[in-house]
Amino acid sequence: MEDTVRQSETPYVLRTDRDGVATLTLNRGDRFNPLSEEMLAALQAEVEAISVDPAIRLVVIAAQGRAFCAGHDLKQMRASPSAAYYKKLFGQCSKLMLAIQQMPQPVIARVQGLATAAGCQLVAMCDLAVAATEAKFAVSGVNYGLFCSTPSVGLSRNVPRKQAMEMLLTGDFIDAETARERGLVNRVVPLAALDDEIAKLAASILAKPAVAIAMGKQMFYRQAEMGIAAAYQLAGETMACNMMDEAALEGVQAFIEKRKPAWQP
Amino acid sequence: MEDTVRQSETPYVLRTDRDGVATLTLNRGDRFNPLSEEMLAALQAEVEAISVDPAIRLVVIAAQGRAFCAGHDLKQMRASPSAAYYKKLFGQCSKLMLAIQQMPQPVIARVQGLATAAGCQLVAMCDLAVAATEAKFAVSGVNYGLFCSTPSVGLSRNVPRKQAMEMLLTGDFIDAETARERGLVNRVVPLAALDDEIAKLAASILAKPAVAIAMGKQMFYRQAEMGIAAAYQLAGETMACNMMDEAALEGVQAFIEKRKPAWQP
Amino acid sequence: MEDTVRQSETPYVLRTDRDGVATLTLNRGDRFNPLSEEMLAALQAEVEAISVDPAIRLVVIAAQGRAFCAGHDLKQMRASPSAAYYKKLFGQCSKLMLAIQQMPQPVIARVQGLATAAGCQLVAMCDLAVAATEAKFAVSGVNYGLFCSTPSVGLSRNVPRKQAMEMLLTGDFIDAETARERGLVNRVVPLAALDDEIAKLAASILAKPAVAIAMGKQMFYRQAEMGIAAAYQLAGETMACNMMDEAALEGVQAFIEKRKPAWQP
Repeated sequence: MEDTVRQSETPYVLRTDRDGVATLTLNRGDRFNPLSEEMLAALQAEVEAISVDPAIRLVVIAAQGRAFCAGHDLKQMRASPSAAYYKKLFGQCSKLMLAIQQMPQPVIARVQGLATAAGCQLVAMCDLAVAATEAKFAVSGVNYGLFCSTPSVGLSRNVPRKQAMEMLLTGDFIDAETARERGLVNRVVPLAALDDEIAKLAASILAKPAVAIAMGKQMFYRQAEMGIAAAYQLAGETMACNMMDEAALEGVQAFIEKRKPAWQP
Repeated sequence: MEDTVRQSETPYVLRTDRDGVATLTLNRGDRFNPLSEEMLAALQAEVEAISVDPAIRLVVIAAQGRAFCAGHDLKQMRASPSAAYYKKLFGQCSKLMLAIQQMPQPVIARVQGLATAAGCQLVAMCDLAVAATEAKFAVSGVNYGLFCSTPSVGLSRNVPRKQAMEMLLTGDFIDAETARERGLVNRVVPLAALDDEIAKLAASILAKPAVAIAMGKQMFYRQAEMGIAAAYQLAGETMACNMMDEAALEGVQAFIEKRKPAWQP
Repeated sequence: MEDTVRQSETPYVLRTDRDGVATLTLNRGDRFNPLSEEMLAALQAEVEAISVDPAIRLVVIAAQGRAFCAGHDLKQMRASPSAAYYKKLFGQCSKLMLAIQQMPQPVIARVQGLATAAGCQLVAMCDLAVAATEAKFAVSGVNYGLFCSTPSVGLSRNVPRKQAMEMLLTGDFIDAETARERGLVNRVVPLAALDDEIAKLAASILAKPAVAIAMGKQMFYRQAEMGIAAAYQLAGETMACNMMDEAALEGVQAFIEKRKPAWQP
């Protein structure tokens, strides 16, 4: 009871907006930020709100405490042993993962520590990921008899097949540098430099027009599922539409005139 | 005639079972273990038998002699120059490759030496592969005018596109370390350490419940061919089903109680 | 006017044939070889002519000047601000990219310098690419508000997802060695060694029968878009057909007899 009260008082996800960047911080650091129903619902609400908020240009998913995210809340899961409950729970989680990919703003995972199971999936499903040297990654459900099936969907779209399979079958950790080599994260820096590195990426992305980024992100994941001829068809139409946007017309004109684009903020 | 007699006396594939691990050893080392009709049939029979054998938890594909496998039996192939025969032969081989991917147990290739053409394909189609430092890999059919089309199916699902294309167009060998960097094998160790390395992987996999591994392996390759929304649908259903298994319920309970799972052997 | 006259006198693409290798050289080095309508048309005409020319066994796409290709001709693009024009232009470009992938001869990009936007796409869509150490690569359209949508189609079929996304969102350059590690190019050598390295690749490919290469290349890209069972079906049929070709029957016979194949030149 006491726990329930305290938890309801402490938000699951903290949101801080600054200069167009919304940072969503998983706020159950003492428990390694498990993706409980409540945490998933809180993230979903933020993602949906941000998706339609033109003031937000970029999202960073961060976490309190030593771990980034240890996956599902196993205690909560174990308390409801029914197939219907589990289908609903994994459905709720998958919906969030797809919403992250579908939102118009790019999403960067700020991985300061351990990311396991659905926590590793969350990293995989972000558009970009920057990890601290200390971070480590595993799809470890198989260790307790639960193959990381939904995490494998994201993982296998980041990491080569045999490397993904080894992680899934053994549950072993890989370190941040290995994660970078395999394509799961973009950059690895010391923990003390993590915010600076993300700020650099953010500055680069914020300097580009929102419309181009939004069109491009959506097109990128759609074309990835298509045959190459259909992919070119979609990409060509998207790019024609993008080019007719005021920002692109001005950007190209500025490029020709060797000056900076005069974009509306 | 003498050759026929001797060959019929010597099995094409040796099978040794130990502690839940079935090792299938290609047994034509003197000829670099070609995938003749007889070899393919012998492997197919073992794969089908093991697929329904609950006592076997893991399969290792190994080879006698200096080479792992040099691909199809060119002498046998050349003796039957008809399109119908070749279609049947490549169909027989493809059926085996797909059966390896579809069997419930993980399959590790133990690559102690050269793996070329369909031998390289066999490595690509195993779930995992561990190679000796001395091993080398090529899809070399193009050297004698036969583009490695069926090997390319497995290869291109392991190795980045341009790197696969270079191997297919040139027929050139890559060494074991390069194969690891490109995703064709998981680990490379000195020949003397090959069995120990595979034993480590095997121990890790054997420590996990069979049901989780079987469900996960099947789901992994199915979802890889799907769009991401359908992949999540399949993965969520698989994971819900997996979670209802006795081993997962006990495994998660044990995790919560910070003890070892009390799994039935 | 003067400019138009001079341009019509200077061909957009130079073609030199030598020993079965057609080298197509982008010939607007002073302007970083933009893919203007005229350049695209000139390349398309050469690609179509070569596709049906049995004397040509291999294509090299090279460029005059310091840059390989800086993408679309932004000046020309900006002069016709209509969605219909842009759709037509990107359609023309996509058609060329697909034609390169569909032509029976392998195509090698010779990247001596900068390759950006659609220039980076051109590298991605060639079967192989060899870069000078000095070369660098970016999909930089986002810098002027135009997300590199069509380039992303090729790029994302060469380079892991998060790495592609980072390039697309930031517009940042990667150097040649990074491009090699990520799968965008096959080999990197000093500029002075670029022609020798391509000559080595060319010699290797020219030593193989044209029929095997043509069948294999076409099959490779088709199977890459299929589920694995359908891919094996196509590959098996292609390989049976390939094996019935005179060159393969002779090649395999020669392999058995441990002699060089006596192929018709």
